[in-house]
Amino acid sequence: MKLWDKGYTVNNIVDKFTVGKDRVLDLQLAKYDVLGSKAHAKMLQKIEILSEEELKNLLIALDEIEKTIDEGTFTIEEEFEDVHSKVEHILVEKLGDTGKKIHTARSRNDQVLVDLHLYAKDQITEIKKLTQQLFNTLLELAEKHKEIIIPGYTHLQVAMPSSFGLWFSGYAESLIDDVIMLNAAYKIADQNPLGSAAGYGSSFPIDRKMTTELLGFNTLKYNVTAAQMSRGKLEKTVAFALASVSGTLAKFASDVCLYINQNFNFISFPKELTTGSSIMPHKKNPDVFELIRAKSNKIQQLPSEIMMITNNLPSGYHRDFQLLKENFMEGIELMKDNLEVTNFMLQHIEVNTSIVEDSKYDYLYSVEEVNKLVMNGSSFRDAYREVGKQIMDGDFTGDRAVNHTHEGSLGNLCLEEIKTKFKNIIEM
Amino acid sequence: MKLWDKGYTVNNIVDKFTVGKDRVLDLQLAKYDVLGSKAHAKMLQKIEILSEEELKNLLIALDEIEKTIDEGTFTIEEEFEDVHSKVEHILVEKLGDTGKKIHTARSRNDQVLVDLHLYAKDQITEIKKLTQQLFNTLLELAEKHKEIIIPGYTHLQVAMPSSFGLWFSGYAESLIDDVIMLNAAYKIADQNPLGSAAGYGSSFPIDRKMTTELLGFNTLKYNVTAAQMSRGKLEKTVAFALASVSGTLAKFASDVCLYINQNFNFISFPKELTTGSSIMPHKKNPDVFELIRAKSNKIQQLPSEIMMITNNLPSGYHRDFQLLKENFMEGIELMKDNLEVTNFMLQHIEVNTSIVEDSKYDYLYSVEEVNKLVMNGSSFRDAYREVGKQIMDGDFTGDRAVNHTHEGSLGNLCLEEIKTKFKNIIEM
Amino acid sequence: MKLWDKGYTVNNIVDKFTVGKDRVLDLQLAKYDVLGSKAHAKMLQKIEILSEEELKNLLIALDEIEKTIDEGTFTIEEEFEDVHSKVEHILVEKLGDTGKKIHTARSRNDQVLVDLHLYAKDQITEIKKLTQQLFNTLLELAEKHKEIIIPGYTHLQVAMPSSFGLWFSGYAESLIDDVIMLNAAYKIADQNPLGSAAGYGSSFPIDRKMTTELLGFNTLKYNVTAAQMSRGKLEKTVAFALASVSGTLAKFASDVCLYINQNFNFISFPKELTTGSSIMPHKKNPDVFELIRAKSNKIQQLPSEIMMITNNLPSGYHRDFQLLKENFMEGIELMKDNLEVTNFMLQHIEVNTSIVEDSKYDYLYSVEEVNKLVMNGSSFRDAYREVGKQIMDGDFTGDRAVNHTHEGSLGNLCLEEIKTKFKNIIEM
Amino acid sequence: MKLWDKGYTVNNIVDKFTVGKDRVLDLQLAKYDVLGSKAHAKMLQKIEILSEEELKNLLIALDEIEKTIDEGTFTIEEEFEDVHSKVEHILVEKLGDTGKKIHTARSRNDQVLVDLHLYAKDQITEIKKLTQQLFNTLLELAEKHKEIIIPGYTHLQVAMPSSFGLWFSGYAESLIDDVIMLNAAYKIADQNPLGSAAGYGSSFPIDRKMTTELLGFNTLKYNVTAAQMSRGKLEKTVAFALASVSGTLAKFASDVCLYINQNFNFISFPKELTTGSSIMPHKKNPDVFELIRAKSNKIQQLPSEIMMITNNLPSGYHRDFQLLKENFMEGIELMKDNLEVTNFMLQHIEVNTSIVEDSKYDYLYSVEEVNKLVMNGSSFRDAYREVGKQIMDGDFTGDRAVNHTHEGSLGNLCLEEIKTKFKNIIEM
Repeated sequence: MKLWDKGYTVNNIVDKFTVGKDRVLDLQLAKYDVLGSKAHAKMLQKIEILSEEELKNLLIALDEIEKTIDEGTFTIEEEFEDVHSKVEHILVEKLGDTGKKIHTARSRNDQVLVDLHLYAKDQITEIKKLTQQLFNTLLELAEKHKEIIIPGYTHLQVAMPSSFGLWFSGYAESLIDDVIMLNAAYKIADQNPLGSAAGYGSSFPIDRKMTTELLGFNTLKYNVTAAQMSRGKLEKTVAFALASVSGTLAKFASDVCLYINQNFNFISFPKELTTGSSIMPHKKNPDVFELIRAKSNKIQQLPSEIMMITNNLPSGYHRDFQLLKENFMEGIELMKDNLEVTNFMLQHIEVNTSIVEDSKYDYLYSVEEVNKLVMNGSSFRDAYREVGKQIMDGDFTGDRAVNHTHEGSLGNLCLEEIKTKFKNIIEM
Repeated sequence: MKLWDKGYTVNNIVDKFTVGKDRVLDLQLAKYDVLGSKAHAKMLQKIEILSEEELKNLLIALDEIEKTIDEGTFTIEEEFEDVHSKVEHILVEKLGDTGKKIHTARSRNDQVLVDLHLYAKDQITEIKKLTQQLFNTLLELAEKHKEIIIPGYTHLQVAMPSSFGLWFSGYAESLIDDVIMLNAAYKIADQNPLGSAAGYGSSFPIDRKMTTELLGFNTLKYNVTAAQMSRGKLEKTVAFALASVSGTLAKFASDVCLYINQNFNFISFPKELTTGSSIMPHKKNPDVFELIRAKSNKIQQLPSEIMMITNNLPSGYHRDFQLLKENFMEGIELMKDNLEVTNFMLQHIEVNTSIVEDSKYDYLYSVEEVNKLVMNGSSFRDAYREVGKQIMDGDFTGDRAVNHTHEGSLGNLCLEEIKTKFKNIIEM
Repeated sequence: MKLWDKGYTVNNIVDKFTVGKDRVLDLQLAKYDVLGSKAHAKMLQKIEILSEEELKNLLIALDEIEKTIDEGTFTIEEEFEDVHSKVEHILVEKLGDTGKKIHTARSRNDQVLVDLHLYAKDQITEIKKLTQQLFNTLLELAEKHKEIIIPGYTHLQVAMPSSFGLWFSGYAESLIDDVIMLNAAYKIADQNPLGSAAGYGSSFPIDRKMTTELLGFNTLKYNVTAAQMSRGKLEKTVAFALASVSGTLAKFASDVCLYINQNFNFISFPKELTTGSSIMPHKKNPDVFELIRAKSNKIQQLPSEIMMITNNLPSGYHRDFQLLKENFMEGIELMKDNLEVTNFMLQHIEVNTSIVEDSKYDYLYSVEEVNKLVMNGSSFRDAYREVGKQIMDGDFTGDRAVNHTHEGSLGNLCLEEIKTKFKNIIEM
Repeated sequence: MKLWDKGYTVNNIVDKFTVGKDRVLDLQLAKYDVLGSKAHAKMLQKIEILSEEELKNLLIALDEIEKTIDEGTFTIEEEFEDVHSKVEHILVEKLGDTGKKIHTARSRNDQVLVDLHLYAKDQITEIKKLTQQLFNTLLELAEKHKEIIIPGYTHLQVAMPSSFGLWFSGYAESLIDDVIMLNAAYKIADQNPLGSAAGYGSSFPIDRKMTTELLGFNTLKYNVTAAQMSRGKLEKTVAFALASVSGTLAKFASDVCLYINQNFNFISFPKELTTGSSIMPHKKNPDVFELIRAKSNKIQQLPSEIMMITNNLPSGYHRDFQLLKENFMEGIELMKDNLEVTNFMLQHIEVNTSIVEDSKYDYLYSVEEVNKLVMNGSSFRDAYREVGKQIMDGDFTGDRAVNHTHEGSLGNLCLEEIKTKFKNIIEM
């Protein structure tokens, strides 16, 4: 049954082409659709479009649907094009005319908008939790390995002393920026679009503040066309935040793939967590981190895909928006997987404790020598020239003691300060 | 002079290829470079690397440089590769050894990071102001034309009554989401990277909290590798925010280009603000809005460009980051131009007051008729079928009075509420 | 069973995260995997690694596998990570030691490369056929409706007379460029990578020219690292070609969505091929073309996704490449669907025959008037000014006869020449 | 002077915003504009719109303009918006009424289309030449260093023996694919759009075959709307080809940046061709290759930018297209620079001749051992298990002689075959 069935059968080719993956994707939206319907029904009763009796029956029926969703037995069959049709069908089947009344003063447009806004809020909350777990793991690793020096690179050239403490906690602090982005996306999602109908409101005297409160939105998207324009924009905004987290994960995974390489040999993982080769028996490949990187890059492309599909379109709903759902929802799943698997892998990371002894790292300490000269009264530029000359003449011998004391340096990681900073942001 | 001049001349081809547009772009960063140097010098004095006398002289010299920047006479000649070299050169020329000391405990890496963070903060602030002006203009237009009905489209099909009030204020409210993104970008920019040197800190006992305060940053990016990783990430984050504003402008421009078309004919602009054709004398082309759209789309591509250049790179500085500066700064200029020009054009927009009389808009009122039947006791679905039948039989006659009352509808635009919402966000 | 099973069980989390959708996607590659194995086996026999008897048995077993693939009964169960493991497993089960020998002198890397190259060639061939069908349909429609004038727009402003003949055949000729891109992608795919093993060849005296011939490749990718580098590059190249075709389809779909709009009202489709609205009974929405547009835009984003995942990676295989398969194959399916559905819809397109009578199109003929003055001896610029003045004074009256005669104009569509041009390209 | 000057002054803000960088960019198109005008004039004379005398005078005047372009003295002043206005202005100034006639039967739309098509053809030809030079250099280096073994990596794990011969010639052969893309772009550019006017042709009896021949186009884009649609599509197609070449360069540059790193230490460059550090005196940074990589990535983003700006626009010219010129032309310049500089740098590359002696490369030869067992009668899988066991037990001792003989392997590079293959493609 199509909601807009007017007596003629829409061609099957059209049907297959247009419905796409909605029946599968919408299963994830079902619980939000029911929540939206409950709030809408209560409001309709308040403005006297539904009687108290009708509302009571609708709420019972919606509760029953909710139960099938929780239990995983809710399905969207071939004859329904989406979750909205299916839910309404059940209501009409159970309640007859009362079921038909639920669609008063709303449209599938604001229904799906509500579903997506509620879904986005829940998913962002979950992603923030997973980010927090990863943050905690990184800080623990930083604390545990803070004494171990590794080479720091610039231009991928051996540059200056770094440490596992710096490396792990650097990524931890970098995640704080990503949480700021997640918070922004959440704030944008936290505005109620219900009541905007097809983007132009309606002549029913609906109470949008009531549904805003019932659904737990922070405010309402007042203007109905603004509410409609949030389709695509909501997804894009969340995608920006996902791309932000993913940029951090991708860089971390790139480091891991480099540091596990035999020429670097800074870290390793138990063989159970690496994969082998069909032709080279000695290989222990970091497939997991290669895929974390690749999946992160895929997510980083999501905002562009959304913009490529939606840009240059005038205002008002276009069916094009429907296609966003698929990669948007997949991106969220990839994001959660990536965070969980990164965290899981880090539980098992093994670090090499004697990296910088190798002679290729001798010059790592050249800046330390420059600085010592400076502390003894030389100007920086003169000290720099002197050490440079020693290196070019082969006379350089750096002493490997590192004594960094300033905030955020390898001798003073400020892990507590970073923890507090994260806490202040994540709780916003 | 190259900072790293060690006695041999670097090949000219290399020089030309690597310096790129830095000498021009860096002129915009010069004032921030001086600010950063002042704060750094004060801190060096506090930790006794500079004497009070040396500090005094440095501050005087830096003030003089700042003056040339303000007056527009500061230049970066061919013999300098960037602003940092030029400023240091002036200091050394004026102050000899004292000038050389300013580079103690910092690197060009954290210098440019400070410059970019301060620049980003200022630019975001300016963009927020321009966004606020546009918001105000849109609200004024909404108020002024709130009574004029226009067709609302879905699928670009005539759908339901809308109004100029809804149209203008819908874009205004949509800008609120964009300001949330600008705020997030600002918050991320508002962390002091100074002291991270080349990304691994230094052995000098520098006081990073002091420079944080002196430079007006809200907090410091503690971890020095996290500070280094903000290169590229800062630009990307700001680009996300610019893309968000630009998505709104692009859609608005698309509407304008459609609505000024003769088939729609909803709006017009004075002929001075449109352009003609070399071959068709009657044309009044909306070139300005076509270019606002195109430039907005260009900005929307900026995050992808930044990610394409930086992704899959391991941590640590790479020269690749330098290339980001160019389009990042151009994107910011395009953004400001677009906001200003949109605002300017809207001062002159003319609206057609008698649009919906035309018979092609008859069905615009069909939903109103459905709703009336519902208010009279029909179920929505039955009412929908009845009106559908009237339309298919050619019997439909909608009455053109529109009575929408709910929050955010064309009869109740909630402009004050939207104004308050904007105010709360813009001041964060 | 993992090919690289060395006695320890790889953690399940890792397994699930790394295998991804390979078991499903690889079903499409199975037939090519068998073809590759047959050619490889024949070659191994020629260089005496397999006996004639062993070859005979392998070919029989591979034929049997091929049969299950053709019949749709071939499956890849949970215990296999990909098609290569499954096929090898069957061979070992059936033939024991002989089955194990098939993997001599190859790696999964060149196996999947061969599969992807053969798959790409077949898919491009199919896409070319579908493009040809669409081309033919467009030319037929151009011929059929060549007399019907429609307004031509520039800047979306009414500009000059166009026609359905021009519109349909313009898109047809534009498809020729896309076929040039498909041909280029085909040529790039038509190079045999088999024998490159893991990207560094092997010490076996294999005969790569023999497998090149057996598999019907035009040439071989000689250098084994070049062969390996085609991973990702092949997909990107095909994606460029798909993006080219999709750019044409997206623009056509944009036109359709605009021209079916009530303000334009140039074309329509039978109601069975449009969709309705849940709230507005009169709507006939062009969902199919909105989704053709959206899907085309998604395909246009595919090259960027591939580049985002693969760029900045050094040479040599990385697991990141595996992730490309999913959207690459989906893109190809979307492409074929889009071509088929566009062609299907065009069988049913209805055109409005009396469009330009409307007064809003009066100025459409202004250039014609300018040209008449020129033909009568006026300079173009003077004629232009004169007609411009008439229009501004409200004195313009254009006569609606259009007499265009030059090649490619609405009076001389050159359909035969375009047909020949297409034929010459498609057969390359 | 605006071509469409109708007596009122267009607002300065609008002027500045719309003209953009055209005056500068158009200098590169000037010579093509003159070529197009000459062909157009000759054709106008043939169809008797110009007299022989008028043609003679126009050609003399155009020759004079061409001379100023060749000498670099041609300029486009503030009062002209583009090259077309300037050229026409000169002609009118010199020839009065005759000058005005040149614009008969054409529009700025097809003028700029012709310019861009001719420009694209020339630029692609030049890029092919630069690609050929780089190809030759790579093959020479492969020949020169073919005996030097380097480790081959998969998953960035030490995998199997490779060689500088394989590495250099692998990139050379990979360039062949890129030339196929350049050829496709050339073929698409090689179609004459002149005569399409504003995209809808004209009523003048112009001879488009004549201008096609005069301008050296292989064929004409017959359909005038197809010709118009090539705006944006031409740029996109060329951008695809540039992205293809750039993908190869970016990967090569990534290899270089990795191989010059101290942990790899495979290659180096004279210090004159690397850059230093402001703080670390021992650094020799591969800035040139980092920027080749970054600029290549920027180019790889160009197709997306073009698609982001042009997609979802209906057919017909939009001013949006103008904005493409800037990054399109810049992309072409970046491309040529990148090819030239890569080639220049490779003239100076130094390779380390004793890389694989290091013990970290012991397992590099494990596959060789597996293969030896196979050649002695073992099945591959059994041999694989045996060598795997040796490695895990610490008993593995591979002998470092490498004997690869098959086509494209390190012992049989097939440089002549690759040279022939390249030659056949480049000459198409």
